Amino acid sequence: MPDATPSPEAVHATIEQYCARFSAGDRDGWLALWAEDATMEDPVGSPVKHGRDAIAEFYDGNVGGADSVTLTVQGDPIVCGDQAAFRFEIRPVLGGSPFSVYAIDVMTFDAEARITSQRAFVDLTKLAPAE
Amino acid sequence: MPDATPSPEAVHATIEQYCARFSAGDRDGWLALWAEDATMEDPVGSPVKHGRDAIAEFYDGNVGGADSVTLTVQGDPIVCGDQAAFRFEIRPVLGGSPFSVYAIDVMTFDAEARITSQRAFVDLTKLAPAE
Repeated sequence: MPDATPSPEAVHATIEQYCARFSAGDRDGWLALWAEDATMEDPVGSPVKHGRDAIAEFYDGNVGGADSVTLTVQGDPIVCGDQAAFRFEIRPVLGGSPFSVYAIDVMTFDAEARITSQRAFVDLTKLAPAE
Repeated sequence: MPDATPSPEAVHATIEQYCARFSAGDRDGWLALWAEDATMEDPVGSPVKHGRDAIAEFYDGNVGGADSVTLTVQGDPIVCGDQAAFRFEIRPVLGGSPFSVYAIDVMTFDAEARITSQRAFVDLTKLAPAE
């Protein structure tokens, strides 16, 4: 493997922190997981956002309206070199009530396991009250 | 949406048949789910295969050495327009013994919901004896 490929352990750690810091509302910690010039397509089919500033706007827009948003990985992330995919539950609390929808993120990473691109498969019409 | 986008129901049906026909050993039925000029990157990071003939070779190479291979979707596939992602279990029986590994496939589809590209996130070093 070329030197530019991060270790699987480092990729797993980034994904773990991606969910943990987002869930904790740690905006700056979450943004630090992304490369400066990263791209985000969330959801897949929407215009691609470029750079950490645009990603910060996405974060503020999505977390801003919710009491909290918890991301929980379902099963182990699958790492293939400098790319990975994982299924997870998005559980926002809106006006005191929990909701739930499932997503699959596909990511690429740089040598330091920072996210260089993210594509989020999610269908927000499936958002439903959680048990 | 443009006319070239298949319905979500048609995409779900293709994915269901992708797993069902593969699991049943229905080689020709499984190959018919792919567009003639489809591409396959299985696993992600390996050379991309082009066209249904190359995909048939992949099928023969993978199913040939096993008693059977069962694919079972885990949770609903997530459809975004003409693209989809889904997590599934691959359960080959080798020499009478069942094994298991998890994968996430990312696909694109044509207007008839035939697969135009597939990328399979799977780490075969995680293949383990199944319960």
